[in-house]
Amino acid sequence: MTETLPLKPIDADIVDKLTATVAEREAIATVVRDVVERGLRNVYFVGAGGSIICSYPAHYLLQQKASFPAFQVQSDELNTAVPALMGPGSLVVLASYTGTTKETVAAAKTAKATGATVIAAAKAGSPLAEAADVAFTGKSDLFELVVAFELLAGTGAELDTEAVDQALAALPAAVRDAVEQAEPLLADIAEAFKDEPITYVLGSGPSYGWAYGLAMCFLQEMQWKHAAAFNSGEFFQGAFEMVDDDTAVLLWIGDDASRPMGERAKSFLDQYCKKAQYVDVRDLELPGIPESVRGEVSPIVVGALANRLAQHYESARGHDLETRRYMFKVEY
Amino acid sequence: MTETLPLKPIDADIVDKLTATVAEREAIATVVRDVVERGLRNVYFVGAGGSIICSYPAHYLLQQKASFPAFQVQSDELNTAVPALMGPGSLVVLASYTGTTKETVAAAKTAKATGATVIAAAKAGSPLAEAADVAFTGKSDLFELVVAFELLAGTGAELDTEAVDQALAALPAAVRDAVEQAEPLLADIAEAFKDEPITYVLGSGPSYGWAYGLAMCFLQEMQWKHAAAFNSGEFFQGAFEMVDDDTAVLLWIGDDASRPMGERAKSFLDQYCKKAQYVDVRDLELPGIPESVRGEVSPIVVGALANRLAQHYESARGHDLETRRYMFKVEY
Repeated sequence: MTETLPLKPIDADIVDKLTATVAEREAIATVVRDVVERGLRNVYFVGAGGSIICSYPAHYLLQQKASFPAFQVQSDELNTAVPALMGPGSLVVLASYTGTTKETVAAAKTAKATGATVIAAAKAGSPLAEAADVAFTGKSDLFELVVAFELLAGTGAELDTEAVDQALAALPAAVRDAVEQAEPLLADIAEAFKDEPITYVLGSGPSYGWAYGLAMCFLQEMQWKHAAAFNSGEFFQGAFEMVDDDTAVLLWIGDDASRPMGERAKSFLDQYCKKAQYVDVRDLELPGIPESVRGEVSPIVVGALANRLAQHYESARGHDLETRRYMFKVEY
Repeated sequence: MTETLPLKPIDADIVDKLTATVAEREAIATVVRDVVERGLRNVYFVGAGGSIICSYPAHYLLQQKASFPAFQVQSDELNTAVPALMGPGSLVVLASYTGTTKETVAAAKTAKATGATVIAAAKAGSPLAEAADVAFTGKSDLFELVVAFELLAGTGAELDTEAVDQALAALPAAVRDAVEQAEPLLADIAEAFKDEPITYVLGSGPSYGWAYGLAMCFLQEMQWKHAAAFNSGEFFQGAFEMVDDDTAVLLWIGDDASRPMGERAKSFLDQYCKKAQYVDVRDLELPGIPESVRGEVSPIVVGALANRLAQHYESARGHDLETRRYMFKVEY
């Protein structure tokens, strides 16, 4: 019999963390307006692990709506090969909540040396905060998305700004509410998959970030469980050959433009994979979020669900989320 | 005892396929010059599975050297969310060797509807060839890279064009030569990893494509073996916690700007993972490839090595590379 651990309560500070980021919105807008006035050419979201994962919703939004190019670059990919288009007129957005991830601190310096404007979400006084032109402290997944909304507003993109205002005000409580609604489903998934030798996690569009993040940060790093993430469309290019009724597959189905990709994967899994589990964001009520921007803000919910699912795994498997072999323990 | 299959000879047409793409270079240059003259704004590499994987070296090169933005977009991600910047002035580059991959054919039409110029590598007369403005038939990994070189030449980027000419002329034979040099190593890797329950494959920069491609196309699709690919830098953000001396990890170390990322991963694996296997492109002689462009063209070698490694797996495991459960067999 597996040893278990008590299930932690839902993080008490979910709402506070998101609210803190929303509270920084005006300060973010000020920086963005300044960059736009000086001639914005492009935007780079830079990070490693969780901090690049958090940028998927923002990058996806800008790709669809922005009049300027937006890119995602892994911190050390930036450090080893600076993009030709990064320079004056570039806004480089980084995050590292400890503010100490060495490749991301180095990336801030690499970016700054090109003449780009560098902003970061990082602990006050941390090396990353020091390396950035402007640092913000809101410790949530929402930072990059707020930057994206302000960039769109500042560059005259078509955007229902009233709906965005309403959505950002409502989002902190709505995310917590969504996690509570999903609680029984998340408990079931952890129970169903706790002994699986490998778990495949699928997501599309902005939700791919937390498919990758669940596989890497939560299952591999924090639960020492084999896992692999795939884009729900790429799944059909090879990975789906691994599937039978006994394969553990978790599919995030977003409520955004990429939804048909999730639905296609679900149709296939319904037929060939009895063990598959689904989390469909459309099934969750998001109180106060206007329908017109649900696609843009709902990806934030997926990160919160992934985080909560990890706590259910911890409990069901009796494997503490804080245990590490190497991270922060050895040199690498 | 595992049943084995006879080892196939190295594909007789490696050289011919690459040579056929090089032979189309002038025709590619003509299209590119025309697009540049009409006002090139950006470039999108679009595909699914192998065809997006093939675009990593080209995308990486343009990111470092081009004066215009270059993006990679998965075919169905494009079909469900058209980027705001795609339109007149965009060059959209697709590939599908059968020319029938349905999401990629749809993506060509999606792109064309925006006013973009659409070019494709696809079988003559296939649906993708029909949907493109101009179709090329060279069936190799090199198509996107040739497009990238011609784009750089056509837009006045700093480029040692003589060295590029020399490299492209020498590359077909050099790739075959490199595969022959790597033959004993690839045989060892397949033998060492043939019974592993899961294999992690790492690569950085342009070689990430064939880390992902080896995991998905060759191990999962064609060998029904669990696998997961990681960027060699992202590995340290979580996946490395899975590693001990008994974990199967294959690391591609490229001979390009991202090499320090591969070296960092190798240092870690040398210490904590006795079972790790390495393929270092720097160890391979590439006859006729000038040193100054080795970083740009050597990633093409990685694709050929991945392909050959798959044949060694087939032999060592007795699992035919052509066997499928679903692909081309059921509706999805």
